[in-house]
Amino acid sequence: MTHRLVLLRHGESQWNLENRFTGWTDVDLTPNGLAEARRAGQLLKAEGYDFDVAYTSVLKRAIRTLWTALDEMDRMWLPVVHSWRLNERHYGALQGLNKAETAAEYGDEQVLVWRRAYAIAPQPLPAGDPRQSDGDPRYADVPADQIPRTECLKDTVARVMPYWNDEIAPAIRSGRRVLIAAHGNSLRALVKYLDDMGEDEIVNLNIPTARPLVYELDDDLRPIRRYYLGDQAEIEAAMAAVAAQGKAKH
Amino acid sequence: MTHRLVLLRHGESQWNLENRFTGWTDVDLTPNGLAEARRAGQLLKAEGYDFDVAYTSVLKRAIRTLWTALDEMDRMWLPVVHSWRLNERHYGALQGLNKAETAAEYGDEQVLVWRRAYAIAPQPLPAGDPRQSDGDPRYADVPADQIPRTECLKDTVARVMPYWNDEIAPAIRSGRRVLIAAHGNSLRALVKYLDDMGEDEIVNLNIPTARPLVYELDDDLRPIRRYYLGDQAEIEAAMAAVAAQGKAKH
Repeated sequence: MTHRLVLLRHGESQWNLENRFTGWTDVDLTPNGLAEARRAGQLLKAEGYDFDVAYTSVLKRAIRTLWTALDEMDRMWLPVVHSWRLNERHYGALQGLNKAETAAEYGDEQVLVWRRAYAIAPQPLPAGDPRQSDGDPRYADVPADQIPRTECLKDTVARVMPYWNDEIAPAIRSGRRVLIAAHGNSLRALVKYLDDMGEDEIVNLNIPTARPLVYELDDDLRPIRRYYLGDQAEIEAAMAAVAAQGKAKH
Repeated sequence: MTHRLVLLRHGESQWNLENRFTGWTDVDLTPNGLAEARRAGQLLKAEGYDFDVAYTSVLKRAIRTLWTALDEMDRMWLPVVHSWRLNERHYGALQGLNKAETAAEYGDEQVLVWRRAYAIAPQPLPAGDPRQSDGDPRYADVPADQIPRTECLKDTVARVMPYWNDEIAPAIRSGRRVLIAAHGNSLRALVKYLDDMGEDEIVNLNIPTARPLVYELDDDLRPIRRYYLGDQAEIEAAMAAVAAQGKAKH
């Protein structure tokens, strides 16, 4: 039996637009991001995709993307499971900073290191920093020592994978059709695992916003095929746009 | 310990507006209904209410009301559990008919019997009727003999109560703060049980749309207090408007 899994990165957020490091900051979608989410739902419906359960993070840009897509698919009643483990990579002390300004100050290369080095995390948010989510009820059930104050992609992979192994993979194996609406880096963690990518390969992979990424998986959940739904030239352009975000504006 | 439970009837739907029997038909909110849901969320937030879990039906007018209220409360990440058992009363062969036209044909009294007699159901939807939800995936896990083709309020009570007893009441007892976003008659079922109302009393009780109804419950989940949030005169007017819906327009 073949399983079909769909990954969906959230649509453009306000801080994508402002070119700021977002991480765990709970920034909303822009009107354009909302339109992207609508198109994703329409595309999934038009291509005959359907789901039994959806997983998402506890951040509203992913949740609103999911809600909007489910609304377009007439599947608002679908079970939705939230986990902090599907959150975006925590960006530490960079959260809230403008990417172009940071690049102008530290250089494109340092920003690229922070954005793309697999195992190098930015400085952590200091204790008491208002940008940290201390006391946020959505993390009340998470042991304090598991809540990051910064992450490299390796850290993100380390906290996403238990959720895949314990929750999502068993659901897929049991025959449930799964949609995951999440973030650039939590989805990279899954793609790295599914496609057995090396560290260099995954840091250079750009997942475009709100384009459904389909995996056809065998019984051992190994990928047989992998493709984006929609216009392929338009998807290439969207991937290039993500890649260019870390560069200083001249 | 006291528990606080909040019940929320969905905002005005398109068929509320058109004065048609809705039942299990998956009609959406009107712009006014959406605004009502927004106000409910703003009111809950302003009054300091917060929740750990929300329950709703599999019908979009209740789900959208819930989503909209959660959005206003900045609680989009809250766990939401859907159950067909919280659906509106199934209105059988009346589903889709205009209430005023039905009243003009059968008389106010017969319509009032169908709307308000505790144990008298309208004619069932016949097999193959396009208004029935045969094959709808949201009911795929429900045993066929449990899916109604018509209901009186007594029938609605009979299918709501197992869900209260098995799912919602244990959650409240365990200390979780519960919000239920549902429908006029599935909420009546709960109110009848909580307030230990007689059949005559419950059929004459009108629950206004999108006004948070708060129950303070003791450890045995018996009500200590019960009140609507918001302007009381405005709530009285909303209840009177619901009561007047079944009358023929002259």
